Amino acid sequence: MTTPLRPQKTHLFTPGPTPVPDAVLREMSAPMVHHRTAQWQEAFGEVLVGLKRVFGTEHDVATFSSSGSGAMEAAVANLVRPGDEVVVATQGRFGKRWAQMAERFGATVHLHETERGQRPDPEEVGAFAAKHPNATVVFCTHSETSTGAVSDAEALAASVRAQVGDGPLLVLDAISSLGAARMQADAWGWDVVVAGSQKALMVPPGLAFASISPRALERARETSANRWYFDFAKAVDAHRKTPPSTPVTPALTIVLGLRVALDIMFEEGLEQVYERHARLGRATRAAVGALGFELFSPDDDSSCALTAVRVPEGVDGAKIPGKLKEYGVTIAGGQDDLKGKIFRLGHCGWVNDLDLVLMVAALERGLVELGVDIEAGAGVAAAQRTLLGEVAGVPA
Amino acid sequence: MTTPLRPQKTHLFTPGPTPVPDAVLREMSAPMVHHRTAQWQEAFGEVLVGLKRVFGTEHDVATFSSSGSGAMEAAVANLVRPGDEVVVATQGRFGKRWAQMAERFGATVHLHETERGQRPDPEEVGAFAAKHPNATVVFCTHSETSTGAVSDAEALAASVRAQVGDGPLLVLDAISSLGAARMQADAWGWDVVVAGSQKALMVPPGLAFASISPRALERARETSANRWYFDFAKAVDAHRKTPPSTPVTPALTIVLGLRVALDIMFEEGLEQVYERHARLGRATRAAVGALGFELFSPDDDSSCALTAVRVPEGVDGAKIPGKLKEYGVTIAGGQDDLKGKIFRLGHCGWVNDLDLVLMVAALERGLVELGVDIEAGAGVAAAQRTLLGEVAGVPA
Repeated sequence: MTTPLRPQKTHLFTPGPTPVPDAVLREMSAPMVHHRTAQWQEAFGEVLVGLKRVFGTEHDVATFSSSGSGAMEAAVANLVRPGDEVVVATQGRFGKRWAQMAERFGATVHLHETERGQRPDPEEVGAFAAKHPNATVVFCTHSETSTGAVSDAEALAASVRAQVGDGPLLVLDAISSLGAARMQADAWGWDVVVAGSQKALMVPPGLAFASISPRALERARETSANRWYFDFAKAVDAHRKTPPSTPVTPALTIVLGLRVALDIMFEEGLEQVYERHARLGRATRAAVGALGFELFSPDDDSSCALTAVRVPEGVDGAKIPGKLKEYGVTIAGGQDDLKGKIFRLGHCGWVNDLDLVLMVAALERGLVELGVDIEAGAGVAAAQRTLLGEVAGVPA
Repeated sequence: MTTPLRPQKTHLFTPGPTPVPDAVLREMSAPMVHHRTAQWQEAFGEVLVGLKRVFGTEHDVATFSSSGSGAMEAAVANLVRPGDEVVVATQGRFGKRWAQMAERFGATVHLHETERGQRPDPEEVGAFAAKHPNATVVFCTHSETSTGAVSDAEALAASVRAQVGDGPLLVLDAISSLGAARMQADAWGWDVVVAGSQKALMVPPGLAFASISPRALERARETSANRWYFDFAKAVDAHRKTPPSTPVTPALTIVLGLRVALDIMFEEGLEQVYERHARLGRATRAAVGALGFELFSPDDDSSCALTAVRVPEGVDGAKIPGKLKEYGVTIAGGQDDLKGKIFRLGHCGWVNDLDLVLMVAALERGLVELGVDIEAGAGVAAAQRTLLGEVAGVPA
């Protein structure tokens, strides 16, 4: 007989929103402040400095009160003109969003598709871009949240530059990877990188960011047509003021929370944060393998924010997330035609080694209760051996 | 090389204070209310009804703003007179507190000691009490928090009654067991059972309780000497009013939180709560055994609130809790001369099956980092197999 899991606790093992640290929740639940106060302006100034560090840029980072897609739209609206040709390199659902947006803003899109679950080949993307020398922008995806595949952003930019030259602007969707995977916008040559608050940055959704290179900002300043809310120049000019400001009322509490969240990240150390995400990915893959499941995400450290797993034949995969929800544990299913065929385990943001073992324990429990033939305990043991092997040299 | 565990999260796997449910924390962080308001009085009335259900009594439950020891002192101050003889049956540190208190209030104490880590033999305690027929009170301990041994309260009361008759009042310390182990104060014949808020009742420390049989209340009413704050009659008379009241300003927010906590317990079902605690104990023992450790607590379902584990030869046991604290995980060491010789894993209150696996993962990590020779992953796998075996019939 199945015993319901009580007491219930809430665990988000999703690509986003991700768990929010207690200290961030406390900061955000303090009495409301006004944005024209030194208290808030000081926090906002610190957030802008901290974001530049995470983006790896010395230039501007614009903030918008929106979901991550808002920053995508900002990139398109500011950089694409009606009649432009653009290249979009996609490895899944979210890559295609670039194409949809660019078309809405009047561009002709040349689409390079990488098989879902795979990482785009930098050489190929560069060669594809070279076939469309008039493209004004090349749009790519860093972490493809629908599959867990994180592209090699450094190699992608280098290959496009090598094969196309400095002509097109390079724009990257790093919404679900910024803070989980290394990012060096300036050094790697990305003109615009966009991100959202509710992934590895560990705060609630509602705030979006775009790092903007000087030449991208120049392109944006050429015209103010086709956007007002998402105008790069307007945001940047306000942010550059002393004290820093915003063109519209910002999502005040999320900014306050983000200051605390960034402090938590810097206290751990950004390199350590990236290494932790990679380690959580390795432990997840070890657990999934020990349970006899196959990966949909790439079987390497690029699967650092989430791990997509193939549902075996004969199992109704759509039931797995629902079963875990009975325990208060949220994981993600597949999207669109992948529904029921994969499930996605998020290990992004405020997640540590112990949480990962709990996540695997919940997954095992769900699979057992759904009647899937697994060896109970094998997953948690494999995850634990991987984690302890790395932190304390235990043989795996 | 050892990697520090980041990000840190707080996990209490102690005999108390125990984790407080989110919903309780939210209730307790609402703006302060006054106690002479319908809002608070209604909550207090519900708490009194709920407590009677948990104590298994139709009679009075007195509340005191104090730690659990305050309710112990109340029992002694109200029931023991200078010159009285009393029997104290102890199985450890907290049992001896009864003796110390009774002596302070002028009693001659006849002490029955059970070896630490063992449960008292009901026959023996009854026979011991029969040797002291003038004793006015027999004091026992339900869960001995220093060792994890939970006595058989039903058999203890029955044996004393059978061998001594109805003369002495029977008083039980159920501070760390009430809400974790079954309690039927009336049916089993305990005149007074005392408990505290910060154990299985899942709220912060600061509130203590005593169930009081009619004849215990009668004994208390005989004199008001030697206590004022802890007076049974004063508390009961105030609680019996409409609306219910307290003689002094009560720990208001803890009462409000307790209403929510009791609701959580009743929603799960008291029998299910007890079964969960027993299951968590079984999984802990399975994990400890798989790691090659020996138990100090009894190896049966009486170890339901915490599990005390012997530290093997050659290991400095005092370091184990300190190591786990580096991960934000609190367990308890041994007390007094047991320091360094045992450690105690609490699985009491707001703890579910998934938390237990996390607790074992933290323990394994600590042991590995301290260089103790264990098989990493064996503990989590054993815990998980035990839990899944029980909830879903997986062979163990």
